Amino acid sequence: MIQMTLIQIDNYGPWTVTPAPRTESDLQILQAELYADLQRQFAAKQGLVFFTRFDNMLAVTNNSDVEDHLRIQRSIRNRYPITVSMGVGAAETPYDAQRNASKALQNYGGAQSEDRSEILAVDGLVNKEESFVQLAHIDINGITESLTDIVPAYDTSFIVNRVQHFLMKKLIEKGSLLFFIGGDNFMSPCNGLEPEGLLKIIEEIEAEINVALKAGIGKAPTAEKAANLADLALEEIRDGFTYDLVHVMKE
Amino acid sequence: MIQMTLIQIDNYGPWTVTPAPRTESDLQILQAELYADLQRQFAAKQGLVFFTRFDNMLAVTNNSDVEDHLRIQRSIRNRYPITVSMGVGAAETPYDAQRNASKALQNYGGAQSEDRSEILAVDGLVNKEESFVQLAHIDINGITESLTDIVPAYDTSFIVNRVQHFLMKKLIEKGSLLFFIGGDNFMSPCNGLEPEGLLKIIEEIEAEINVALKAGIGKAPTAEKAANLADLALEEIRDGFTYDLVHVMKE
Amino acid sequence: MIQMTLIQIDNYGPWTVTPAPRTESDLQILQAELYADLQRQFAAKQGLVFFTRFDNMLAVTNNSDVEDHLRIQRSIRNRYPITVSMGVGAAETPYDAQRNASKALQNYGGAQSEDRSEILAVDGLVNKEESFVQLAHIDINGITESLTDIVPAYDTSFIVNRVQHFLMKKLIEKGSLLFFIGGDNFMSPCNGLEPEGLLKIIEEIEAEINVALKAGIGKAPTAEKAANLADLALEEIRDGFTYDLVHVMKE
Amino acid sequence: MIQMTLIQIDNYGPWTVTPAPRTESDLQILQAELYADLQRQFAAKQGLVFFTRFDNMLAVTNNSDVEDHLRIQRSIRNRYPITVSMGVGAAETPYDAQRNASKALQNYGGAQSEDRSEILAVDGLVNKEESFVQLAHIDINGITESLTDIVPAYDTSFIVNRVQHFLMKKLIEKGSLLFFIGGDNFMSPCNGLEPEGLLKIIEEIEAEINVALKAGIGKAPTAEKAANLADLALEEIRDGFTYDLVHVMKE
Repeated sequence: MIQMTLIQIDNYGPWTVTPAPRTESDLQILQAELYADLQRQFAAKQGLVFFTRFDNMLAVTNNSDVEDHLRIQRSIRNRYPITVSMGVGAAETPYDAQRNASKALQNYGGAQSEDRSEILAVDGLVNKEESFVQLAHIDINGITESLTDIVPAYDTSFIVNRVQHFLMKKLIEKGSLLFFIGGDNFMSPCNGLEPEGLLKIIEEIEAEINVALKAGIGKAPTAEKAANLADLALEEIRDGFTYDLVHVMKE
Repeated sequence: MIQMTLIQIDNYGPWTVTPAPRTESDLQILQAELYADLQRQFAAKQGLVFFTRFDNMLAVTNNSDVEDHLRIQRSIRNRYPITVSMGVGAAETPYDAQRNASKALQNYGGAQSEDRSEILAVDGLVNKEESFVQLAHIDINGITESLTDIVPAYDTSFIVNRVQHFLMKKLIEKGSLLFFIGGDNFMSPCNGLEPEGLLKIIEEIEAEINVALKAGIGKAPTAEKAANLADLALEEIRDGFTYDLVHVMKE
Repeated sequence: MIQMTLIQIDNYGPWTVTPAPRTESDLQILQAELYADLQRQFAAKQGLVFFTRFDNMLAVTNNSDVEDHLRIQRSIRNRYPITVSMGVGAAETPYDAQRNASKALQNYGGAQSEDRSEILAVDGLVNKEESFVQLAHIDINGITESLTDIVPAYDTSFIVNRVQHFLMKKLIEKGSLLFFIGGDNFMSPCNGLEPEGLLKIIEEIEAEINVALKAGIGKAPTAEKAANLADLALEEIRDGFTYDLVHVMKE
Repeated sequence: MIQMTLIQIDNYGPWTVTPAPRTESDLQILQAELYADLQRQFAAKQGLVFFTRFDNMLAVTNNSDVEDHLRIQRSIRNRYPITVSMGVGAAETPYDAQRNASKALQNYGGAQSEDRSEILAVDGLVNKEESFVQLAHIDINGITESLTDIVPAYDTSFIVNRVQHFLMKKLIEKGSLLFFIGGDNFMSPCNGLEPEGLLKIIEEIEAEINVALKAGIGKAPTAEKAANLADLALEEIRDGFTYDLVHVMKE
């Protein structure tokens, strides 16, 4: 089972315009540093946070217990002008885990409710024995030569965003999630997705928008290990140790 | 005229897997902190950086001269394990400005060239007299009530990404760019785009994917002031001071 | 027993002037962010880091094992232009613990040796059963009214530094350490020091330099809990719940 | 003339213990990141900040005007749980400049006054023509070989603190300030101090506590340039280009 945590800044929207709209650069710095900070803290327990919408972040948090979550909420409260609420869910698929996490938090009130502050809503936690995370690291073949070095920077990011959009559309049907992690890289929490299923998606995308992708899949008890195995699997494809476009490594 | 800077991490891809794939959480922290850091430094000169792909960032940098760019490159070299190259371009439209910035940098070699390091390639700078930045701050109407508080967090980010994809597709035809800035917010450098043009795009998106958007447009000599005016214009729509879905404020 | 870790930036001095002296502001930012970063990571295991000389930091690390130390070294290597070596020691007194940690690291070569990089030298670790940390939180009585609000800022910091100098001189004889933690606050790892011993030191300092101090002492299995108990003990003195100048709280 | 800014966290002491003592590691991170942040922002205008007491920082801010100070206060308010007030003073000597800055701020109320928030109290600013900063970079000869590599880490920091204490005592009589900047390095804003005067202090300290120091002095219109020249002057001594223990470089 995979455990996911929804991290939501409390009443953030209204705060950003009170008393007047706050300087955009300050908000961008605040959001990026909050994300980096949460990443560092969840990483201490082998978790992995995705920036998602920045005011709402989704994280794979197998191995983080209630006390870990409370410690992180406290440390944010002590160092930022805002507080964060969290919902925690566990399920067989990443989609269901984040849905359970979302529901748990939504039960305590809206994201912009003035009464709701620093809630920790736990729907379920994954115990060590059943802990399992499957992550796919997907990237675009030869993007540097074919795009970055020859077309305008914005055109490349336009194509990367297009790929993300198509990947999200196809993966969500499998109960898998998809997050952009920079460059031409995507990370997909995909417990339950077979390699063949991901290969089919990659082939469809090549057919539909003519972009060639490849994917390394890692399977392990924690997000950190799964991500590392996915990276190693992807390296094996890059280095030609396999001709498969989807390569799997497990602990 | 608008001035844009392309900021590119030198030879980043290879570095992330040398000697072995680096821990994903560390890379995420590095990228987010680098972005926050560049934002803070360009903001000191009223500029605004967009994270774009994190290893390639686009910034509106009217009011930053060559020395400012060199100072920022030096400060990154002194505090990070990587260096950054930059291309600077100026044009009537944001699209052309980033294209010129991209070309200027591409002339010095590929993003993954081992010889290319800390290049500052200036195609053009905007002087004070002709400096003009038009930014549109676009958001989704009532997303908190209609999505964040009732559907799973991932579904909301899926829709936000979909909106981004459609906005990018339509704005690029106008020479305008579109960047996600968190939550349900987008910022569009859009010199040359008429309010009617943006309104038409918003109406098309409502028709095509049934998502209602609104936009505040700001016009000023620097990105900081334009963004602030765009925020104020958006607030006027939110507060019902105008029924327009696109509202403009200029200095 | 108390466990202490010496964190030393590898070959830092030469790096700061290669190829030419690096901008002082950049070095100050690098040092402060490295300290904050290490603090956050050791804190995830209830440790506490003191900035000491910034290029050499001492930390109370009961509850951090070898893997925790290795993880932190790796995360620094992945995000900074420098690497850190560490020595770990355990003993009955903080002085002996840091001495053992120092010796362990010194055995691997000098701080400015070009061959020595990212060493983890473990002389001893404290196991859960015998883990014990005693911390004293010492501050100056009414400094805001008597100094901060009426004399020049530098004069106040001059007096605070003088107090630090006298406290260090007297505490080291007891095998206790003393670190400045900001404002008018000092934290002293002081396993083995009796409250009477600390009271005597406080009385001597009042007699010698006419500065009135008070101290809260906390005793617990980890630095985090000990520091919290020391804070609570100090609050009890501030709030007049006790007339003692040294007040102790234990788990 | 030199311009100095006193940066003071508003009502910080009470905040750190409200509602209960905040976790020490969080406070240490907050203080270090605030210092790094202010350093980066003042450095954008060639200034230099010294951490001093962390809740009270002193900075050499020639070239930063009122708007620059206001921008920094705003950016801190937008990203931290605290606000900062500032006092700005100008004078022939650093001591007088910080005294004027302190007085200006003290006039607006105490550091722990609940009513005083985000004050900018300007006693005087230095204009470009009369702008002059003299900085001395002082370090300990061969500390790595004689101390760091052979004695316990705490003993070395004890000696460094002792040197700081003696330097502060002697320099303040000359109207010069002294700040620890890490390792075995000290930076002294010392407008008006003659090289002979500093040499005499260094000789006295060698005689009194048997620690050999050397100093590079830089003179320039801004702190950044003066610090750089001081570093270069110190390098010339280290490299044996001069036998003087105090070496001066000016623009």
